[in-house]
Amino acid sequence: MSTSELHLSRELHAGAPNARTLAERYLDVRARTEALCEPLEREDFVVSSMLDVSPTKWHLAHTSWFFETFVLSSHDSGYQSPDQRYAFLFNSYYVQAGERHCRAQRGLVTRPTVEQVFEYRAWVDDAMLRLIDRIAEDAAHPAVALIELGLQHEQQHQELLVTDIKHVFWTNPMRPVYDARATPIRAALEAGMRWKTMDAGIYHVGHEGAGFAFDNERARHRVFLEPFRVAERLVTNGEYLQFVNDAGYRRAELWLAAGFSCAQERRWEAPLYWERSRDGWSMFTLAGEEALAGGVLDEPVCHVSYYEADAFARWAGCRLPTEFEWEAVAPNVPVASHSGSARHLHPAAPKGARGLTQLYGEVWQWTGSAYVAYPGYAPAPGAIGEYNGKWMTDQWVLRGASCATAPSHMRPTYRNFFPSDVRWQFAGIRLAGSVSIA
Amino acid sequence: MSTSELHLSRELHAGAPNARTLAERYLDVRARTEALCEPLEREDFVVSSMLDVSPTKWHLAHTSWFFETFVLSSHDSGYQSPDQRYAFLFNSYYVQAGERHCRAQRGLVTRPTVEQVFEYRAWVDDAMLRLIDRIAEDAAHPAVALIELGLQHEQQHQELLVTDIKHVFWTNPMRPVYDARATPIRAALEAGMRWKTMDAGIYHVGHEGAGFAFDNERARHRVFLEPFRVAERLVTNGEYLQFVNDAGYRRAELWLAAGFSCAQERRWEAPLYWERSRDGWSMFTLAGEEALAGGVLDEPVCHVSYYEADAFARWAGCRLPTEFEWEAVAPNVPVASHSGSARHLHPAAPKGARGLTQLYGEVWQWTGSAYVAYPGYAPAPGAIGEYNGKWMTDQWVLRGASCATAPSHMRPTYRNFFPSDVRWQFAGIRLAGSVSIA
Amino acid sequence: MSTSELHLSRELHAGAPNARTLAERYLDVRARTEALCEPLEREDFVVSSMLDVSPTKWHLAHTSWFFETFVLSSHDSGYQSPDQRYAFLFNSYYVQAGERHCRAQRGLVTRPTVEQVFEYRAWVDDAMLRLIDRIAEDAAHPAVALIELGLQHEQQHQELLVTDIKHVFWTNPMRPVYDARATPIRAALEAGMRWKTMDAGIYHVGHEGAGFAFDNERARHRVFLEPFRVAERLVTNGEYLQFVNDAGYRRAELWLAAGFSCAQERRWEAPLYWERSRDGWSMFTLAGEEALAGGVLDEPVCHVSYYEADAFARWAGCRLPTEFEWEAVAPNVPVASHSGSARHLHPAAPKGARGLTQLYGEVWQWTGSAYVAYPGYAPAPGAIGEYNGKWMTDQWVLRGASCATAPSHMRPTYRNFFPSDVRWQFAGIRLAGSVSIA
Amino acid sequence: MSTSELHLSRELHAGAPNARTLAERYLDVRARTEALCEPLEREDFVVSSMLDVSPTKWHLAHTSWFFETFVLSSHDSGYQSPDQRYAFLFNSYYVQAGERHCRAQRGLVTRPTVEQVFEYRAWVDDAMLRLIDRIAEDAAHPAVALIELGLQHEQQHQELLVTDIKHVFWTNPMRPVYDARATPIRAALEAGMRWKTMDAGIYHVGHEGAGFAFDNERARHRVFLEPFRVAERLVTNGEYLQFVNDAGYRRAELWLAAGFSCAQERRWEAPLYWERSRDGWSMFTLAGEEALAGGVLDEPVCHVSYYEADAFARWAGCRLPTEFEWEAVAPNVPVASHSGSARHLHPAAPKGARGLTQLYGEVWQWTGSAYVAYPGYAPAPGAIGEYNGKWMTDQWVLRGASCATAPSHMRPTYRNFFPSDVRWQFAGIRLAGSVSIA
Repeated sequence: MSTSELHLSRELHAGAPNARTLAERYLDVRARTEALCEPLEREDFVVSSMLDVSPTKWHLAHTSWFFETFVLSSHDSGYQSPDQRYAFLFNSYYVQAGERHCRAQRGLVTRPTVEQVFEYRAWVDDAMLRLIDRIAEDAAHPAVALIELGLQHEQQHQELLVTDIKHVFWTNPMRPVYDARATPIRAALEAGMRWKTMDAGIYHVGHEGAGFAFDNERARHRVFLEPFRVAERLVTNGEYLQFVNDAGYRRAELWLAAGFSCAQERRWEAPLYWERSRDGWSMFTLAGEEALAGGVLDEPVCHVSYYEADAFARWAGCRLPTEFEWEAVAPNVPVASHSGSARHLHPAAPKGARGLTQLYGEVWQWTGSAYVAYPGYAPAPGAIGEYNGKWMTDQWVLRGASCATAPSHMRPTYRNFFPSDVRWQFAGIRLAGSVSIA
Repeated sequence: MSTSELHLSRELHAGAPNARTLAERYLDVRARTEALCEPLEREDFVVSSMLDVSPTKWHLAHTSWFFETFVLSSHDSGYQSPDQRYAFLFNSYYVQAGERHCRAQRGLVTRPTVEQVFEYRAWVDDAMLRLIDRIAEDAAHPAVALIELGLQHEQQHQELLVTDIKHVFWTNPMRPVYDARATPIRAALEAGMRWKTMDAGIYHVGHEGAGFAFDNERARHRVFLEPFRVAERLVTNGEYLQFVNDAGYRRAELWLAAGFSCAQERRWEAPLYWERSRDGWSMFTLAGEEALAGGVLDEPVCHVSYYEADAFARWAGCRLPTEFEWEAVAPNVPVASHSGSARHLHPAAPKGARGLTQLYGEVWQWTGSAYVAYPGYAPAPGAIGEYNGKWMTDQWVLRGASCATAPSHMRPTYRNFFPSDVRWQFAGIRLAGSVSIA
Repeated sequence: MSTSELHLSRELHAGAPNARTLAERYLDVRARTEALCEPLEREDFVVSSMLDVSPTKWHLAHTSWFFETFVLSSHDSGYQSPDQRYAFLFNSYYVQAGERHCRAQRGLVTRPTVEQVFEYRAWVDDAMLRLIDRIAEDAAHPAVALIELGLQHEQQHQELLVTDIKHVFWTNPMRPVYDARATPIRAALEAGMRWKTMDAGIYHVGHEGAGFAFDNERARHRVFLEPFRVAERLVTNGEYLQFVNDAGYRRAELWLAAGFSCAQERRWEAPLYWERSRDGWSMFTLAGEEALAGGVLDEPVCHVSYYEADAFARWAGCRLPTEFEWEAVAPNVPVASHSGSARHLHPAAPKGARGLTQLYGEVWQWTGSAYVAYPGYAPAPGAIGEYNGKWMTDQWVLRGASCATAPSHMRPTYRNFFPSDVRWQFAGIRLAGSVSIA
Repeated sequence: MSTSELHLSRELHAGAPNARTLAERYLDVRARTEALCEPLEREDFVVSSMLDVSPTKWHLAHTSWFFETFVLSSHDSGYQSPDQRYAFLFNSYYVQAGERHCRAQRGLVTRPTVEQVFEYRAWVDDAMLRLIDRIAEDAAHPAVALIELGLQHEQQHQELLVTDIKHVFWTNPMRPVYDARATPIRAALEAGMRWKTMDAGIYHVGHEGAGFAFDNERARHRVFLEPFRVAERLVTNGEYLQFVNDAGYRRAELWLAAGFSCAQERRWEAPLYWERSRDGWSMFTLAGEEALAGGVLDEPVCHVSYYEADAFARWAGCRLPTEFEWEAVAPNVPVASHSGSARHLHPAAPKGARGLTQLYGEVWQWTGSAYVAYPGYAPAPGAIGEYNGKWMTDQWVLRGASCATAPSHMRPTYRNFFPSDVRWQFAGIRLAGSVSIA
């Protein structure tokens, strides 16, 4: 992300109080990351259960490396890393930031220990707070925008930390529970789907003005949309179960060719984390196993791939919205955070509200838009320019935000992106359809 | 492709003479396929040199199977296949048309022999011509649209037959020559690139009205384009060589992450079919090896993947056009066929014309548009609906047409598509860029 | 194979008439190879249906390359190859003989054509016969031993040619028939197994004296054998079917660990070429499908891997013989050729004889001896030394000879060898057991 | 291992004091395992750095599971496991002992924690000691033999624990040190190799009589050996370095075909753990990096595969001994333990002694004998019979014992075995050769 493109203001997001200082925000974000680790045993920090998953320990270190590499190294001439080898170990993919450790081996590295990684975080925090203190008077200081980028980056890794440890726990036949204290909301859901219909016309999409946004959300530009409609709520477990029971996973005509091959090869029969026993379907969650019954059927279906979302939509006689359709309906909906309790890292059913609901805070929503550059897109020069642009192939855009997203990390123009076969994220389905002009 | 969506008229494409009958067109297309096989030895028909490549024999049979399955089986109640097992052997990917042979084993099937496959073609031709004769008076007969689909389908396989045999020959250390008689055009090219600039506005894209089009070219709809410019000619071998010599293949910052990984793993250093010796670069063509020198440097670069096209464009400070930008500039350009001679299956340099050139007949042009459905897209019911829609993931749209495309198969709304790493097609690069509104 | 170790005499094998000349033998062997190709279509010569299988065309060329490389190049100063590139294309694995084509791509090479390969053979034959004529008077000429090695080599490839084309035909859903004229022998087999029991003692194994042998059959040396017994005939299809029906392929305790994994992964349920339909088991042969019923049940089971042979023996309460036990019982048994008719390339039931039968001419017999060097083993210097020694790892010795082995290629000291999972050879099972000393 | 075949006496191995009780031996062995873990951090216990490597935590648990499954479950009717799921998690490969966890996922299991695994050990120890106490008077009790098998099993895992953690540390770019306190012995080695020559004759090999042995060491039987010689000491780093410097890894003629392919594919240039820098070669050890210079050159070369041992021997004009030759020279050599200090887990140079040295306690010695059954071999009935026999394919026998072998685990008839490409064990080279009779 280009420093020249970062327009950081004290209002980091809608509704943020003016009085909040950068140091406070820095400490808040960093503390939230560590709070997410509280339920873990030391052994849990070390492993990677598949190539997409990074060890908790690595997330803790990599987010610190990011501040070290992109902020401290340029703006704190006296800064020294506690260990020169960390630059190699904790660089994720920034080719221009030097050689780096192989991703496939992240889960094989037992040292530095967890304790040493927390010491590394404290070391970086000390230097960062001294730097923030020094530049606090100068909102235009180039480091300010980079610090905000680092915080947004850390918030992305907070979500990954949660989805990754969920996968690690699920991989373990012991099936550990992350936090059993959660008490999910169980609202009775109205049957049937209501739709928001939109007229044809030119819409504006993408970010502009104050507040943080990634480079891939720019430039704000015009798109023409033919008439369409978007479902007011997410697809539920109950609805998805009908698809499963209707032989949805065995009917090739409902699927993309690559999707059907994928589902066959990996023997998919239901979303990730669903399991069938003699007693029927249940679902692994961070609070333990839950039966797919009662109020759980009203919760949004989650942990589906694009392939499954697309097949479900076809089965339902609909399609997925484009990312532009999604953004076109979003402006008047408040950016609400997760409707569950703070520790309840699981999507919840809607509270019975009318109108467009569940845009943010439950599951990311697959769109039918491939992840490509907006007109006028320009990545930042140097290593930081590798943040977003180099991934623009074979990925789909997801919109909204999930139950694992930090509340201050949600916004209508946000473009999340993942490949077609990915299931370990909190991703679900919002339906859409075209409207004949008549 | 839906029969209800096929609007076949006697004017199959712009400029086609009214007097031409369906039977004549059928015979022409079928004869062109067989003419392409004339330079081959019997052994050449059998093998597949990689997963993407099908044996010539298979192309000859599969295109006949298509008529058998989608036309004769429904519209000729007395038709019987010469061998029931052909339905299994020559179905490509139509799940709803029954079980089929594994793609990876197509090149292992020595029987039926080449002679038997030609007999199969003759058998199908007999039945088809009787059918055409029977329905000739009735332009609205549902078989008419299916026959046209079958002919368009065969034209697609004509191009694949050429690209596939080129790959087979190249894989062979003996490096056979397909047809040495070709005399390529060698025009002196003006240095520098000229651009066609377009204003922002609403453009109409997609097919409507008379003439054949695939389902994926529909519905015709509106798109808004920000101001842009498109290069008037294709990128040349000479220009691409500068990229190669500027370490283009070793500079990660020019590439998509997946593209750079791919290039490293497969040890790409230049387009497919380029080879470096002590005497410099040469290029394998269907007419033999050619040195990359003289007029050859003005020919369009060919056999590049999307990854390479994208990296080259970034190196050049440009980008690829979207498929909508491409279609927006195309309407006023005549659909000209290949500028080389009939047997010269190799892209040629422009003839020095001013204005937009080389849209058709040299190389397909990678666009920056992912292959997704148009608004209102609806595939046909049944097996024929698997023709296009089920491939809409992880592919890019290519526009135009190549030197291997049948002239009557070219049109401005045509959407060809291939994955990012594919190189054995005649695919090249047309540059584009955004224009600041100022 | 070392020239110094080759002790070629006019008596090439037991019973060969003295009057037979080297030229006659050369022509006989070469003609037998070509006779095996008579039932093939031109397309059949080209493909390789798996990595172990070479195209017929390649066998024809490679055996000629062998004479070119190891005989003509050293002993005919005027010899020139018809095409320099053949040295690259038709070298199998002799590193010291220069660069060579990749094995995995043998089946992708359409040129030289079949006709050109036969021309190559004729070219080599011309040169060879002139050379043989020149040296005919001199039995000690170093080329004589090399020519014999080349003929033995060609006989090995005759067998591979047969097993390879069988696999090619089976891979093809059309299931072509190689030669339907064969009339198999159907003898009624006595029930029960008879055994030949041998005392403990020192035995001599390995080749010495006149007659050809490969280097791996030397040096003749002493081994001590504890008392043992060997089955007088081969295990039959009927007996093996009992193992199959007794859940033999699903009982891990009967198998080597690697064998059970292999059988599970490849979904083995029976020998290669066995197929189960509603009508019961049948078997693919070079003469077409045959039901596993009647006299076929008395034929030797064939196309089993070492893993299966070993598991069957354990199920039967026996074990496989060591190669030394096999050789210890062989000396008094005549080296009889295949009990079927000449074109009947399929193992036959015994003719009811008493005593040790079926040692030669039906199926190779897996032994429990790993393929390692004999004491005093020394490969020849130079490229020819790569013939045998470099394969001495992870292979088992097979003894005897099969229905596809040329009669003059059989001898008691012959050490054939293949890895544990190979099934496309004509390989079967002879049981053995230890005898308690009491 | 069959209980009926275990002939455990109070004299567990030569020189063991009569007074030693089974309980003492049990406690000693269990304590040695835990002592090996002392230098580790908690994170180190969790991961597996490659498929061959198991986590330390797993070794600790699996060895306890072994006692639970094969001793307590049959001989302590009141025993209950602390967690029923451990039977699934910690079964290595015993199919008849029930379903088990996938080996490839051993390193992904973070719970039970290390602390819980130590609790599991204590739980098993309690039950075992109560059982031992109960049966102590009855040396013929069937549990006694099983307990001894469990202790021998645990000693095998002690060695694996060491070789596995060495690989884990080496995989980590931080290169942790296991124990820096070791002070290796550095003896000046005489130049040149001395040989022990043996006459042809019948030798007895395999175990019989009192003392523990695995089933694969039986039955004791006779072999005939032609005259041979065996090197009196191991091949040194210095000698192996000459092979490396003589382009040993690039000369195909020195290698088995599979060995050369393997070395090329994996880019081997030296033994595992050797690394080349500008300053020359160094070697990773459990005590840190050591330069290949001075006394280190006299240490035995270690961490070579069979392929490398075989190639080195060929380069040296020798061969590897057979396992029978090795056993034939061993009887008169005392079973001496590692010549280094207790914590020095690294092979040491000989102390200058004359005669056969370094048979035990430095490195396992690859032999040229494939791992197959002895005459009369019979595995135990039931799950315990899977201990040895089911691995008898594609492995080579290694003889002796290494610096990581428990002293009471060494004996002349011991048959260790590994595949050709394995390098992470402490395995080295003893040369041998044939002696012409003449």
